[in-house]
Amino acid sequence: MTARHRRVMQITAGRGATWQSDTVSVEEPLEIRVGDTALSVTMRTPGDDFDLAAGFLVTEGIVRGADEIAAMRMCPDASASTGELNVVEVTLLKSAVSRSLTPRAFYMTSSCGICGKASTDAVRTTSPYHVDDDPLRVPVDVLMGLPAVQRAAQREFSRTGGLHAAALFDSAGTLCCVREDVGRHNAFDKVIGWAATRGMLPLRSHVMLASGRASFELTQKALMAGVPMLAAVSAPSSLAVELAESSGMTLIGFLRGERMNVYTGYERVVRT
Amino acid sequence: MTARHRRVMQITAGRGATWQSDTVSVEEPLEIRVGDTALSVTMRTPGDDFDLAAGFLVTEGIVRGADEIAAMRMCPDASASTGELNVVEVTLLKSAVSRSLTPRAFYMTSSCGICGKASTDAVRTTSPYHVDDDPLRVPVDVLMGLPAVQRAAQREFSRTGGLHAAALFDSAGTLCCVREDVGRHNAFDKVIGWAATRGMLPLRSHVMLASGRASFELTQKALMAGVPMLAAVSAPSSLAVELAESSGMTLIGFLRGERMNVYTGYERVVRT
Repeated sequence: MTARHRRVMQITAGRGATWQSDTVSVEEPLEIRVGDTALSVTMRTPGDDFDLAAGFLVTEGIVRGADEIAAMRMCPDASASTGELNVVEVTLLKSAVSRSLTPRAFYMTSSCGICGKASTDAVRTTSPYHVDDDPLRVPVDVLMGLPAVQRAAQREFSRTGGLHAAALFDSAGTLCCVREDVGRHNAFDKVIGWAATRGMLPLRSHVMLASGRASFELTQKALMAGVPMLAAVSAPSSLAVELAESSGMTLIGFLRGERMNVYTGYERVVRT
Repeated sequence: MTARHRRVMQITAGRGATWQSDTVSVEEPLEIRVGDTALSVTMRTPGDDFDLAAGFLVTEGIVRGADEIAAMRMCPDASASTGELNVVEVTLLKSAVSRSLTPRAFYMTSSCGICGKASTDAVRTTSPYHVDDDPLRVPVDVLMGLPAVQRAAQREFSRTGGLHAAALFDSAGTLCCVREDVGRHNAFDKVIGWAATRGMLPLRSHVMLASGRASFELTQKALMAGVPMLAAVSAPSSLAVELAESSGMTLIGFLRGERMNVYTGYERVVRT
């Protein structure tokens, strides 16, 4: 259940107040544990929690792919009175355990772009995939059509008005996966986790689309999954542009209506 | 400097591609240290960093107000090659040190709503301020005017299109402080830190306005500063509504145009 009904007082100028039933996006904490270690607690839209956990482990560099995950299970949160399942417990293969859960990994446990300059550098060197030689080419008209496809696939947005979306497309602009979440970083992790559990990493010749801004964090997540092109409906940040440029990723901003700004990796955008 | 110029390829359907100078929001990491302990690294818009640090310490429950902070200084990030000042080192008074930096505090160091059910409960009990008896009353027409005042006060938005804003108003709708940031949690911390360093906490009979959604995290931050009314231009989440309700805070969503939804604390919204 990703939306809850709620009685609200709707006030409109000149027309007074009426009681309405409003639909509110559900936001619940999810704790991601590896063995006995709580790696992260993130506020998320419930659903696709295994994908979220798998994607988080990939984008934080703890695993390279879902094949390093031995098992995942949902547990009730012992401290919660609601009985909601808000803990994902992950068991890693031994090969993954040996190099993960280092202090650096802990330092990056935030799902909201927490990182220092040191970890910025670390991501650039530790991402297992290179995107700079990716042969992806996408025509302008295909790119301009992506936001409409994403919105059409979003089931919740029109009901609650409060969700961010991430979508994965192939080079022909065909939608592979779309996920929504109260946290845009979670939407990215859910899409990347979806792909990881299908053995699709690295996501060569794919495009990821963000419904909002392109931050450093989202650019970093795309890079950790080997995505060579990131497009966003809104603006990128300076650090997102710098990371995209230094890694050879194509970064597009303000992809809306019939225009876009291409910040880096121009050669992948084909003008006809 | 909160914006950088950047050459981009702007593509418009039917009109081809042109090179333009685009303004990109600067995003840089800021590490907040208390003594030798790195509490948090957040991606933020540079500027007002002492306010950000003070607000973070208040909203994470590490200090009750700026009077528990003995000193703050900006340090260069040793690992950065750019020479940017990206570390704030805070010295607390002894009284504050004795009760802070507990494991719980660490658990809440994320600036992006990281919290478990346990910490949700913890916030409700550890916020030093109660808002349920706050006598604030605000007329509907004053509320409807707030977003326009906030937008007019935002200097960056029209240039970069990428910033979130938080604003603080008194009960007459007069703007006290507005801050913008690539992270909306930072915009909240900067406003709250601004107020804290002026000895204004708790922010009784004040209204905070968020330019986007009202998440649990932002509601929690407002509560930690004693704000009795939170308004948001976009939707609230379920957990934000629950926290506002249980703490007696007024929560308003979709405050735009000439309408609003009042989710909790209806008695503070005065209809004329």
